[in-house]
Amino acid sequence: MKFPTNLAEMKPHTSTTLQKEREKASFPVQEMDKFINGEKSIALREKALRVIRAEPEIFDTKDIYFMSRNEKLDRIYQQEKRIQELLRDGKIDATDIGQIFGILDWSSPFDLSRGMFIPTLMQQCTDEQKKAFLEPALKYQIIGCYAQTEMGHGSNIRGLETTATFIEETDEFEVNSPTLTSTKWWIGSLGISSTHACVMAQIYVKGKHVGLFPVVVPIRSMENHKPLPGVTVGDIGPKMGFNTMDNGFLNLNKVRVPRFNLLQKYVSVSRTGEVTRPANINSRASYGTMVFVRANIASNMGRQLAKGITIAVRYTSVRRQFGEPGKPESPVLDYGIVQYRIIPILAKTYAMIGMSHEFYAQYEKTAALIEKGDFSMLKEMHAVSCGLKRWTSDTCIYGVDTCRHVCGGHGFSQFSGLNEFFAGLYPNIIWEGDNFVLAKQTASYLVKSAYGLRTKEQVEVNDTTNMFRHFMNLDSKLSPAELYTWSGKSAHEIASSEKLLLDLLGYRVISMVHDLAVKIYGKGQSWEESSVPSQGIATVHSEYTVCLYFSRHINKLPQGSPLRPILQSLFKITALSFLTRNTGELYGLPSKASMTREQINGLVSEYIESMKEVREQAVPLVDALGVPDEKLNSSLGKYDGNVYEDYMERALNEPLNRDGTGEEIRKRFFDKYIGPTIHADHSKVSKL
Amino acid sequence: MKFPTNLAEMKPHTSTTLQKEREKASFPVQEMDKFINGEKSIALREKALRVIRAEPEIFDTKDIYFMSRNEKLDRIYQQEKRIQELLRDGKIDATDIGQIFGILDWSSPFDLSRGMFIPTLMQQCTDEQKKAFLEPALKYQIIGCYAQTEMGHGSNIRGLETTATFIEETDEFEVNSPTLTSTKWWIGSLGISSTHACVMAQIYVKGKHVGLFPVVVPIRSMENHKPLPGVTVGDIGPKMGFNTMDNGFLNLNKVRVPRFNLLQKYVSVSRTGEVTRPANINSRASYGTMVFVRANIASNMGRQLAKGITIAVRYTSVRRQFGEPGKPESPVLDYGIVQYRIIPILAKTYAMIGMSHEFYAQYEKTAALIEKGDFSMLKEMHAVSCGLKRWTSDTCIYGVDTCRHVCGGHGFSQFSGLNEFFAGLYPNIIWEGDNFVLAKQTASYLVKSAYGLRTKEQVEVNDTTNMFRHFMNLDSKLSPAELYTWSGKSAHEIASSEKLLLDLLGYRVISMVHDLAVKIYGKGQSWEESSVPSQGIATVHSEYTVCLYFSRHINKLPQGSPLRPILQSLFKITALSFLTRNTGELYGLPSKASMTREQINGLVSEYIESMKEVREQAVPLVDALGVPDEKLNSSLGKYDGNVYEDYMERALNEPLNRDGTGEEIRKRFFDKYIGPTIHADHSKVSKL
Ligand SMILES: Cc1cc2nc3c(=O)[nH]c(=O)nc-3n(C[C@H](O)[C@H](O)[C@H](O)COP(=O)(O)OP(=O)(O)OC[C@H]3O[C@@H](n4cnc5c(N)ncnc54)[C@H](O)[C@@H]3O)c2cc1C
Ligand SMILES: Cc1cc2nc3c(=O)[nH]c(=O)nc-3n(C[C@H](O)[C@H](O)[C@H](O)COP(=O)(O)OP(=O)(O)OC[C@H]3O[C@@H](n4cnc5c(N)ncnc54)[C@H](O)[C@@H]3O)c2cc1C
Repeated sequence: MKFPTNLAEMKPHTSTTLQKEREKASFPVQEMDKFINGEKSIALREKALRVIRAEPEIFDTKDIYFMSRNEKLDRIYQQEKRIQELLRDGKIDATDIGQIFGILDWSSPFDLSRGMFIPTLMQQCTDEQKKAFLEPALKYQIIGCYAQTEMGHGSNIRGLETTATFIEETDEFEVNSPTLTSTKWWIGSLGISSTHACVMAQIYVKGKHVGLFPVVVPIRSMENHKPLPGVTVGDIGPKMGFNTMDNGFLNLNKVRVPRFNLLQKYVSVSRTGEVTRPANINSRASYGTMVFVRANIASNMGRQLAKGITIAVRYTSVRRQFGEPGKPESPVLDYGIVQYRIIPILAKTYAMIGMSHEFYAQYEKTAALIEKGDFSMLKEMHAVSCGLKRWTSDTCIYGVDTCRHVCGGHGFSQFSGLNEFFAGLYPNIIWEGDNFVLAKQTASYLVKSAYGLRTKEQVEVNDTTNMFRHFMNLDSKLSPAELYTWSGKSAHEIASSEKLLLDLLGYRVISMVHDLAVKIYGKGQSWEESSVPSQGIATVHSEYTVCLYFSRHINKLPQGSPLRPILQSLFKITALSFLTRNTGELYGLPSKASMTREQINGLVSEYIESMKEVREQAVPLVDALGVPDEKLNSSLGKYDGNVYEDYMERALNEPLNRDGTGEEIRKRFFDKYIGPTIHADHSKVSKL
Repeated sequence: MKFPTNLAEMKPHTSTTLQKEREKASFPVQEMDKFINGEKSIALREKALRVIRAEPEIFDTKDIYFMSRNEKLDRIYQQEKRIQELLRDGKIDATDIGQIFGILDWSSPFDLSRGMFIPTLMQQCTDEQKKAFLEPALKYQIIGCYAQTEMGHGSNIRGLETTATFIEETDEFEVNSPTLTSTKWWIGSLGISSTHACVMAQIYVKGKHVGLFPVVVPIRSMENHKPLPGVTVGDIGPKMGFNTMDNGFLNLNKVRVPRFNLLQKYVSVSRTGEVTRPANINSRASYGTMVFVRANIASNMGRQLAKGITIAVRYTSVRRQFGEPGKPESPVLDYGIVQYRIIPILAKTYAMIGMSHEFYAQYEKTAALIEKGDFSMLKEMHAVSCGLKRWTSDTCIYGVDTCRHVCGGHGFSQFSGLNEFFAGLYPNIIWEGDNFVLAKQTASYLVKSAYGLRTKEQVEVNDTTNMFRHFMNLDSKLSPAELYTWSGKSAHEIASSEKLLLDLLGYRVISMVHDLAVKIYGKGQSWEESSVPSQGIATVHSEYTVCLYFSRHINKLPQGSPLRPILQSLFKITALSFLTRNTGELYGLPSKASMTREQINGLVSEYIESMKEVREQAVPLVDALGVPDEKLNSSLGKYDGNVYEDYMERALNEPLNRDGTGEEIRKRFFDKYIGPTIHADHSKVSKL
């Protein structure tokens, strides 16, 4: 199909407009990239881009929007194969793989082998088992998966039905799926790829239930990949997204494996069926992996949202609609309601990435202490990581949705880059603890800590309890004015002060925690009955934490840094968006610390007002997030701003239009269906 | 692939659990179906189901989740062809088509010919033009589309760039797309199907701009469907959803059509280029179509949400997770936070459908008056329909999203029935006026009406202004106690009274409208600066209207009707969900009418409490919505409750597993990619 070439050029051209936006930058963009993403991450990004750009015939993903599921699988297996070659040749290392697929922005069917199978082996294998399983897995000589969830059980792991029964006669475990619902389900890398599965099973030894532990089960022939006897394995079928992953099902019909295949770090079964648990393992140690995975999600979500907001900001900066007569129409980003929809997302993207540096540092500190047998930071880390996994995934996914909607109709096109993206991110609100279930754990930690402080129990010292301690006025005798710093201040004063905003955010947490604690400890309300307020508490706590950590990260900059002013504006918008989300939470503060209607309305106005300033810097700010075109894969978000040209080019490449395929498909539809209808004989039509 | 058949049966079986839920019904389910959907709609549903069930080889859609876009197009064209045959044979009529595709739950590529092309012709053709265009369109002898949106312009219609210039010499219009961005884009039924396009173009006659009017342009050959000279037409490519629709693009390179092809109801151009506009056409008449389309969306959204909530309620009733030891695990619908997520959606589904009967009756009254030249109801109808289109589409789409998320991991499978569904509904928040743009129109009507009442201008009498009049105390001298009926009442009293809830909902509207009016008329704030509060005002106004109309619908039932109690509970939940959404709106009421903290917290508790009652009736309530299995197309929502069996059956049918296709595809992946990786030569691996 040929598109006319004699058309007049658009004025002002979208690329010129974007260029003009860039010229407005009040800060050095590359410096900001370094500060927010970290120098290491930039180096990794650049290396991955070199690999991708060197072999476009393999790594280019422009065409994926036209592909069927099987075509996509074919492409990604091909990429994975090439990556393995590069790995064997020493051209890339394990870290680079995550970077490369991160930029290509889809999941490889080997990802769960890398992401869950191998980490489980690392953590739970004895040295001998490491040799047998971990080493070949690291070399991709076996491909594995982590098979925990069953058709019938996800959140309630204790309810898993798969059993592994010790057979003393043969020194084996018999792994069995007794019911339809016990079939392992959702298991990534299982549907097509895996040779082995790490199966979470209820272990039975001599008729006794030992507990839930992982057993390595070979499931497919190493020669021809056919399922081994007793194994029924397949792909669970098409999903909303994430379709390059072969999530699979697995039914094991009394499959025998050597006793050796039970991972023995946390439990071991002797030749004669004696069960022992190593003494030096703290029961909380197994928390570690969950915390690790959730901390990873929480740290990653901001980087994903960066893609969404880059597309939305660039496009709304060049998309013109309405305006004053005689002038070019206004970019829609000039409209207040467009700013209101996306500027807070831009701010939160920075806040989330900024937070993640501090949070990850905390995580590493915790992990280091655990290594030394000190679990004092684990409880808060667990509560915070549940909360942040929940809050960041929710904010990221619905943030991407807002980015899509703000693009108008064009957001609905696959060429926006926002649709498969949204769908692929979606499971983050479900897996590793459904967000609604996680909130309970965070809230329960908070309520218990507050209660513990009140009753002078021994409570760990950390950011959360420090804030509680402060507002409970436990260590000093602060005056109300020193505690409730916002009292008597104008909305403008509050909005302009990092300290006042943090105080308010913190106090909102403790006041809501207090309300619930009264119900639970005072009136005997059950935790189950507290599940609704628990959601709100988990939210305000995460909002506080995000702001606290983001502000710490900003404050690492030298005072005079040219990056500071705009980062402070982003902080302010983030904090105000949290405080004004449901103003009932501010009206509901206890009377000694109450806010006036004027203050609250004033904060709403400050919030709206603050967006204008950031709007001016929006394009440089998304540029500084450093998301390459390869990851955007979007006509609307292209760095060079050639939105409509790219959009048209992609449409012409649609198989229904494309030279070589289009004519034939269309002819078929016409000959078979459309033609016979429009040329039908109407003589027999009965009047209705 | 064979699945083991020797597995133990689940206990209690999901189908038994569902049966038990049904036995709890406190009301006659079929009566409820009749009341909420209307008898006419049930008859139509049954007729459509007969057609669908008679020819499963054509109309069965169980397999669509496995299909590529082209396979789907092939299937739906086939269905459309069959439907045309049934139509010509007099077996079905035009109304049935909508019903049939409504149940099959996807859009036919001929839908825009039926839904926009034909209605435009009906409204804007002269009698002669009707013969030439409308009659063949009704017989499907030509297929058309409504080509308004361009690549560069959607919301701002005045900015459209396509021109149609009168050429007096040849008595023709020359239709032209001067730029890339002037290319018509997003046009449904255009990409593959249409023979004709109804093109909105800037009309120029003798060098003068006449305005924006529709011109019928033949675009493809009637013989072989090839594009006519000067026409570049194609499909715009893959979208988030709605992929059985051939949204297309169209560039017209100086294409000539007879002058006759300008639709002449609202404008006519004579042989010599004289432009006339019929005198008897009110400029507001053209509002009519927009109002009609929006009223249709608003009336339809509840019926769509019915599908989502049916799946969510049935599945969460049988999905068991956690619980007391020794007992079967609890259905997740027993958990407070699950109820909190979906019971309000169930209530709103009823409220939306109930509202739609009243609203549609209003719409018909308005339309009848317009026919008689009386436009007195149009302004409110326009404002209300903007508001309700916005509110219902938002509530439906994010309601469906909640229904998906509440199903946990399985919601993410295509077999949940909720994913293509969500994607297909999504454009309702974008088309026919983007939701964020629409809010401005509703808010501006409300602010202007309130101001008009205050300044004693002539203001139409309607539900909105009646409520304003009441609270402005214009017609009578009511005491504060009579106006602010909630003052001094307990939360329980408020929550139990339909009148008090409606009073509160109404007063919340006028108080927020008042706040904005003061800024606009008192402080000169511009409408553009008011766009953020406009969103909130449009929302509370729609919430009030939905409750008002729903309560009217309920009150058509006789006092002792067994349907009343549960409907009143649904009303209560709906109203409370609106009032507690952002409690800041209640805290912010002016002091003469203020609510206490106790009342507000009390309403939140009443809200949570009220869900338990409806939870007991949830399954009968979704049954009464009457959504057939064919429309659900869902393992999780099946009427018979055989959730896991159906889920497994569908998974086995996945082409990657299916006998006849699976083995070959998997072998290919293994031979080409997986095998070479796991058997690779590692001797050259360099240590990193
Ligand atoms: C794309 C994808 C990939 C996955 N990959 C893997 C994998 O590789 N390996 C693996 O083992 N698993 C995997 N999973 C499974 C995932 O871990 C589970 O889906 C998740 O744990 C949720 O469990 P569920 O789906 O059974 O939901 P359920 O537990 O059935 O939850 C259903 C609903 O009930 C609610 N609910 C449950 N319990 C309670 C309660 N006590 N109180 C209140 N509400 C409750 C939940 O919030 C949810 O809304 C994957 C899932 C997805 C979607
Ligand atoms: C699936 C689908 C099918 C369609 N079918 C048809 C069809 O058959 N025929 C047809 O003619 N069209 C069709 N359309 C086009 C549809 O009508 C437009 O997408 C819609 O009008 C929105 O316009 P836009 O996409 O240009 O968004 P824009 O107008 O570009 O809006 C972009 C963003 O700017 C915001 N915005 C715009 N103006 C303002 C303002 N003044 N103040 C504040 N914010 C503003 C919007 O809210 C939006 O977020 C279809 C669209 C879709 C998605």
